[in-house]
Amino acid sequence: MSESLEPLHAHFRRIARIRHAETFLSWDQMVVMPPGGLEARSAALAELATHAHTLLTDEEVGARLAGIDPDSLDEAARASHHEMWREWQRAVAVPASLIRARIEAGARCEHGWRTQRAANDWQGFLENFRPVVELAREDAEARRAAEPGRLHTRYDALLDQYCSGDTHELVSGVFDRLRDALPPLLARVARDRERARERLRGHYPIVAQTRLNERLMTTLGFDFTRGRLDQSLHPFSTGAPGDHRITTRFRDDEFVDCLQSTAHETGHASYEAGLPVEWQGLPVGQSRNMSLHESQSVLFERHVLMNPVFLEALLPAIHECLPESRRHGVESLLACWHAASPGYIRVEADEVSYPLHVLLRYEIERDLVEERLAPDDLPDAWNDAMQRYLGISTADNHTDGCLQDIHWTDGSFGYFPSYLLGAVNAAQLVEAWRRDEPQWEAVFASGDIRPLRDWLSTRVWSIGCQLESQDIMRRATGRGTSADAFVAHLEQRYTDHLRSQP
Amino acid sequence: MSESLEPLHAHFRRIARIRHAETFLSWDQMVVMPPGGLEARSAALAELATHAHTLLTDEEVGARLAGIDPDSLDEAARASHHEMWREWQRAVAVPASLIRARIEAGARCEHGWRTQRAANDWQGFLENFRPVVELAREDAEARRAAEPGRLHTRYDALLDQYCSGDTHELVSGVFDRLRDALPPLLARVARDRERARERLRGHYPIVAQTRLNERLMTTLGFDFTRGRLDQSLHPFSTGAPGDHRITTRFRDDEFVDCLQSTAHETGHASYEAGLPVEWQGLPVGQSRNMSLHESQSVLFERHVLMNPVFLEALLPAIHECLPESRRHGVESLLACWHAASPGYIRVEADEVSYPLHVLLRYEIERDLVEERLAPDDLPDAWNDAMQRYLGISTADNHTDGCLQDIHWTDGSFGYFPSYLLGAVNAAQLVEAWRRDEPQWEAVFASGDIRPLRDWLSTRVWSIGCQLESQDIMRRATGRGTSADAFVAHLEQRYTDHLRSQP
Repeated sequence: MSESLEPLHAHFRRIARIRHAETFLSWDQMVVMPPGGLEARSAALAELATHAHTLLTDEEVGARLAGIDPDSLDEAARASHHEMWREWQRAVAVPASLIRARIEAGARCEHGWRTQRAANDWQGFLENFRPVVELAREDAEARRAAEPGRLHTRYDALLDQYCSGDTHELVSGVFDRLRDALPPLLARVARDRERARERLRGHYPIVAQTRLNERLMTTLGFDFTRGRLDQSLHPFSTGAPGDHRITTRFRDDEFVDCLQSTAHETGHASYEAGLPVEWQGLPVGQSRNMSLHESQSVLFERHVLMNPVFLEALLPAIHECLPESRRHGVESLLACWHAASPGYIRVEADEVSYPLHVLLRYEIERDLVEERLAPDDLPDAWNDAMQRYLGISTADNHTDGCLQDIHWTDGSFGYFPSYLLGAVNAAQLVEAWRRDEPQWEAVFASGDIRPLRDWLSTRVWSIGCQLESQDIMRRATGRGTSADAFVAHLEQRYTDHLRSQP
Repeated sequence: MSESLEPLHAHFRRIARIRHAETFLSWDQMVVMPPGGLEARSAALAELATHAHTLLTDEEVGARLAGIDPDSLDEAARASHHEMWREWQRAVAVPASLIRARIEAGARCEHGWRTQRAANDWQGFLENFRPVVELAREDAEARRAAEPGRLHTRYDALLDQYCSGDTHELVSGVFDRLRDALPPLLARVARDRERARERLRGHYPIVAQTRLNERLMTTLGFDFTRGRLDQSLHPFSTGAPGDHRITTRFRDDEFVDCLQSTAHETGHASYEAGLPVEWQGLPVGQSRNMSLHESQSVLFERHVLMNPVFLEALLPAIHECLPESRRHGVESLLACWHAASPGYIRVEADEVSYPLHVLLRYEIERDLVEERLAPDDLPDAWNDAMQRYLGISTADNHTDGCLQDIHWTDGSFGYFPSYLLGAVNAAQLVEAWRRDEPQWEAVFASGDIRPLRDWLSTRVWSIGCQLESQDIMRRATGRGTSADAFVAHLEQRYTDHLRSQP
């Protein structure tokens, strides 16, 4: 590693220490903070964000970065230089006045949305949403103009913040395939999920469920000397090197959703815990992008926990912790998880219909940003796509339609695709692992998934940002992100596999 | 409030927001952080401390402060200006190189102490302790030299950091009185505490104790929408406006220590929660000093919880939460708390012998700082004083002697007196309240201590730093801090009151 990068590394590590503070103050806010703390906490978080931004956009940072010839660096240093440059570039691309305007408009829109959604108040929302879209367009244009060679469209510029390396063309190609394949598959396999869930209802005390979820995490490789499980309103995963925190939520009348969510967040935490130690605190030491991050959570959730062989190995722990579950076997649990049917709500959707929810949002947000759709026309566009993809109408039902998600309220366009790319990448990575590990069923049956973790660690986690996302996928699976493995996985699970079920 | 202070106020509020981050990251470290998080957390806390110090010692701050004529300000603004000046002055008085040297020597000494104490290794400790004392002397001299008109001796300069406004002369006067009064009192009232504690042993589940301690806190006026109770290794109190957090520790075979500790920390939290809202984030809006802070915790612990009338009102809650406690009445609990006897360990000491432990430390640390005592002679000085005040020897027993406390390991000389001044102030404040509220026993009997809280709020909490500590005491009680009320309280409790006990 070139010595010429040392001053820059020291500077970026300072920024990481401020972000450490932001991370755990946010965790605190969502998990333990009493309501009275909100005002002082918001002020502190804003102060830290400003400080980190000031450090990052320091003129000297740009000058130092520009003063280094990447060709003079070895490969590792070149990657580090590139990622520092990319982070700096993203921070300076948008003028501070525009950032402030976006934050203010976003906060107003999100605040209003919290009541407007329940009230089905589209007109009220629209008033606040128009400036959010307008400012997002300006923001996207500023980002695109800063790197016209790499970011060809405005939407590319927004996508780049979350799915860096997965271009608009790549996303389009993958999504085109799914737009064709999934609606007919869904029509073919649709089955009522509620009946399966109803059968599993019972009394499952929270304390016992906590123990069960901790055992699941340990089985999945989570290290409790370097992390925690807590409860929060919405499950999430966060942390810093050596301290990875996930949350879940419990209901005392069922336990399957919670296991699913815990496996999901454990996947996120595993990626973070496996990042390269030697690059801690530097941009090159971070997770690659959200498409890969989500691939790890989906992999742990859909391809490990929901694998019949793994679940069979976990079953004694479930039965031991939750005596009322003893009358249920693997099939009963899978019947909950593996039933697919169209519905209004993305976060409640099954594995087959979920991609269609993302597809719809992707098309709409792209058109909003590219000025091919006006904010006023959002409900119509939503309803059209819902009918086309899922066969249900949201006419006049904004609550369960275009007002259901928080993401757009603050203008976070470009994020949704990462959910679907994550599912696609997960299937492709698992397919490759099974190829490399012909005894994969024995691994799951043993209840010790270290071979899978080691495989992921080598190919994904420990890479950090030393490779671009598609290079990571190519090295791990032999090709860039493609819909093939995902479609094959869904076909197998929802037709072959379910054929044998009650 | 003068507009000329606005830029300074904005700057100090920025510093407060950074300190907010430090506060809650430290809470997290002590209450929930897994061991793996230590390295990143230490780095983040150091980064924040450096940033806050950089903001505080900014040259422009000094210039702005100097550019304002206090006589041009109204009273409130003058107090604010004075407190900002004082905080800035404290921060610039000591050169950065000396601060760093002290932190390093202190960290080394504290780290060694953690094993040396158990090993009774005085010589090993001494090696690390000598530079700690030497640097503390330099630090004290730098502080004294910066304000020679106010800080007459080196020890004054250290005392000023914790007991600002309570001068060396005042402390000496109060402590002289106690040096005469307490040893004979202790000899007169000494009784075995262990027998009383033994009688109360039982099985008290932690979950039920948590509920009981929360009820005690609510009775004492704690607002759980603006604070929390948690568990930690050592009980403490911390927080920020709107979010006051205390911790306690539980044993499942007894419950009295825990109630005592919870009442104590609730007193600290009540002071913080009662600070003036309009000065939030400014030096003038902070608690006055540690002598007053400790007075509030001691008041809630020794004069509210341990008051027989209040305890009688609390008894139904104790009996309800802890069924095994039902065979015990107020007298059994008080017998635990109100037994006094000499012992080695300060933190385990009763109300009568505790002041003698502080007295001993005060005399030794003062002589260390003033170069009247060499670090090498500490064990002899300790043993001499133990024999004189408590009649027990620590010859060759450093573990239970001069190695027992953490305070000196990082050179925090000047802190111990605040513990004793707190007990003295508490007795004096309670005496004054009883004078102002002749129906005080009815207040305690009602289980609603709002009248006491209102009295304290008006006279202590809501003042912040708008008055000096002795002015606060004079306005509240008619005189500055004096040992009279404290001695009278001990005489009453340990002779009159105990006479009636088994």
